Amino acid sequence: MDDFETKLAELAVRVGLNLKEGQEIFLTAHVDHLPLVRAIAKAAYRAGASGVFPVFSDDELSLARLRYGNEAALNHAPRWFFDAVARAFDEGAARLAITGTDPGLFGEIPPEKVGKHMQATREAYRPMLERISEFRINWTIVGYPAQGWAKAVFPDLPEDEALEALKTAIAKATRLNETDPVAAWRRRADELTARARYLSEQNFDALHFRGPGTDLVVGLAEGHLWQGGWGQAKNGVKCLPNIPTEEVFTMPHRDRVDGVVRATMPFSLNGVLVKGLTVRFRDGVAVEVQAEEGQKAVEALLSADEGAKRLGEVALVPADSGVRQAGVLFLNTLFDENAASHIAFGQAYAENLKDADALTPEARAQKGMNQSQVHQDWMIGSEAMDVDGVRQDGTRVPLMRRGQWVFEVA
Amino acid sequence: MDDFETKLAELAVRVGLNLKEGQEIFLTAHVDHLPLVRAIAKAAYRAGASGVFPVFSDDELSLARLRYGNEAALNHAPRWFFDAVARAFDEGAARLAITGTDPGLFGEIPPEKVGKHMQATREAYRPMLERISEFRINWTIVGYPAQGWAKAVFPDLPEDEALEALKTAIAKATRLNETDPVAAWRRRADELTARARYLSEQNFDALHFRGPGTDLVVGLAEGHLWQGGWGQAKNGVKCLPNIPTEEVFTMPHRDRVDGVVRATMPFSLNGVLVKGLTVRFRDGVAVEVQAEEGQKAVEALLSADEGAKRLGEVALVPADSGVRQAGVLFLNTLFDENAASHIAFGQAYAENLKDADALTPEARAQKGMNQSQVHQDWMIGSEAMDVDGVRQDGTRVPLMRRGQWVFEVA
Repeated sequence: MDDFETKLAELAVRVGLNLKEGQEIFLTAHVDHLPLVRAIAKAAYRAGASGVFPVFSDDELSLARLRYGNEAALNHAPRWFFDAVARAFDEGAARLAITGTDPGLFGEIPPEKVGKHMQATREAYRPMLERISEFRINWTIVGYPAQGWAKAVFPDLPEDEALEALKTAIAKATRLNETDPVAAWRRRADELTARARYLSEQNFDALHFRGPGTDLVVGLAEGHLWQGGWGQAKNGVKCLPNIPTEEVFTMPHRDRVDGVVRATMPFSLNGVLVKGLTVRFRDGVAVEVQAEEGQKAVEALLSADEGAKRLGEVALVPADSGVRQAGVLFLNTLFDENAASHIAFGQAYAENLKDADALTPEARAQKGMNQSQVHQDWMIGSEAMDVDGVRQDGTRVPLMRRGQWVFEVA
Repeated sequence: MDDFETKLAELAVRVGLNLKEGQEIFLTAHVDHLPLVRAIAKAAYRAGASGVFPVFSDDELSLARLRYGNEAALNHAPRWFFDAVARAFDEGAARLAITGTDPGLFGEIPPEKVGKHMQATREAYRPMLERISEFRINWTIVGYPAQGWAKAVFPDLPEDEALEALKTAIAKATRLNETDPVAAWRRRADELTARARYLSEQNFDALHFRGPGTDLVVGLAEGHLWQGGWGQAKNGVKCLPNIPTEEVFTMPHRDRVDGVVRATMPFSLNGVLVKGLTVRFRDGVAVEVQAEEGQKAVEALLSADEGAKRLGEVALVPADSGVRQAGVLFLNTLFDENAASHIAFGQAYAENLKDADALTPEARAQKGMNQSQVHQDWMIGSEAMDVDGVRQDGTRVPLMRRGQWVFEVA
């Protein structure tokens, strides 16, 4: 495991970003991620990066604002900074995010305070998010342990052992132990891209999910495209936005989601752990929401704006994915969403809509594309889930049985 | 020493910045400074800050660019970021810098590479520097140990002991052990401000430094003002820009510096240690430069631009200052410049010129103000230095004898 950081850094730079000579990298990380940031800088400069600009978060700094900050502090976000990152993207920079922090960091902070600051941040962050969600630049996310994350995943282990156990799980989920991880991830990305192309060609009207506690029909947007594996950024670079990634995903229709769905795994929502979530949808809108834990955080999320109550993504992941094989509940979306099929409240990705660039916001909405300041994934797949594709004429095509793909692609 | 970080943070926020309710703080620090950054965030939010935005540097990240970066990486600086900080200042943010890193970090990197990257950074950094040097906002600098700094100051101690010894020296230099450091620093700032006012009233034509290896006449700019202690920022806040500070300083005339001067302490220049510097000035310009160590770094500095060869600051510090009493060569300008009288190559401070705001750049230069992308202090004072003020009519007023002030202020 000595070369964990080196291997992961190579993957992030050479496959995830697929860095173009001369590009700058804008990087966000937790202070505990410093060993990986250093390895990434080394790999990036060797690959011809013109710069690596890191911004670090820290648990105590984040908590200080929420604990000691006044109303102005809760409502403030550094707009000058997010605007500047948007400019950096427009000038050619790529985006690398390292995820992996304490999923329950804000658990003891009143949710109204957390919600207020998140709202301020989301608004300021929009110019940056738009460029990412519209794929104007190449970007990627990789995972690395922070102390608080390791403790949440392995609460019964001593600190050092928890960190090592989480590194081992990440190595497994990210398939770092293969002989040539860079080549293997390039092949896997090709395969996911082929599966997405096949599903796009099917042009299903809806997906039907059936499993314990779930009977949900997710209508698909008119002109939806499936994506998976490589992402073609508008700056000309083909990148792999998540490492690991095991999903193919597309755009739900904002008004055509109906039925009930039960989360199959807990997830972290702005630092609050949500467990046992069940949601009933009618005409695309979440009309009933019940969680065993984190109910208020979910309600705060859904009240962020009109689009927060609707879906912006639906994704299929087989139950034998590398992440699932790691056998760990990561309490982190990058990993857990690649352990199971999932859906997301909020903003849809323009890349999931045919010719989106040529459409006005109104025309996009007409086709079913959702708009929101939020995007929150949660897992609904399992070894007990069946998924059908439903055609316009009502005929059904089995896609998954007991959580596994039932068709092969070339 | 348990409350070292807490006391220093209180000083930085309540005296150094004298933070105004609702101000954001833009903060730069080394990753080793995290404990102080955390204490500052706590103190800042308690004092009503709207935000604390930290950017961290790291030795390995800085070295990665210089070791593995190509020509484009050496010539690149994140202009988008410096412009954004300038905007943050214009929108009300204050500036807090934590100094204290390895003074010889770039010692093994070819100086041409270091110089190239520094030049690119200086150019991009200009919008930010202008706002600081023109005092448009309240700002301050405090010191905290990083591992590399402690090792440079105490090379013979084990790592942990070196860190502790440096903390002890900083506590002494910063007079943290006084009963009420905040009140004591406010009094000291008042006293320095009074001394500066007295010297401004004298309106000397020049200063004459005499000591071992030094016989230097520093002509003063027409309409020069002495500053010291409190700085009156244009955003309405009275701040203390350096903690510790023991200096009063004013503006040399860019064309009227003549004679020879020998540095009395080594100093760190962009990561290279400079020892035994002797410089001969003629008509304001450094015409001969000789250093026992770091000669190339000095030459690179002086060739940055036309103003780099001229002086932008002259400062008087008594030989019994708190920093001098700490009895340590800090190898860091914030501390060492407050241990001895000093001069600086490069950019002058507009606050040292009467009615500077009403003057065009040409009119400022006419009065003797120097312009440059660099500002580099170096120490010339000692217990063996005499300083006279020289009036227009040639009469001389003793200011310092054997490094001590020879006049009192109310």
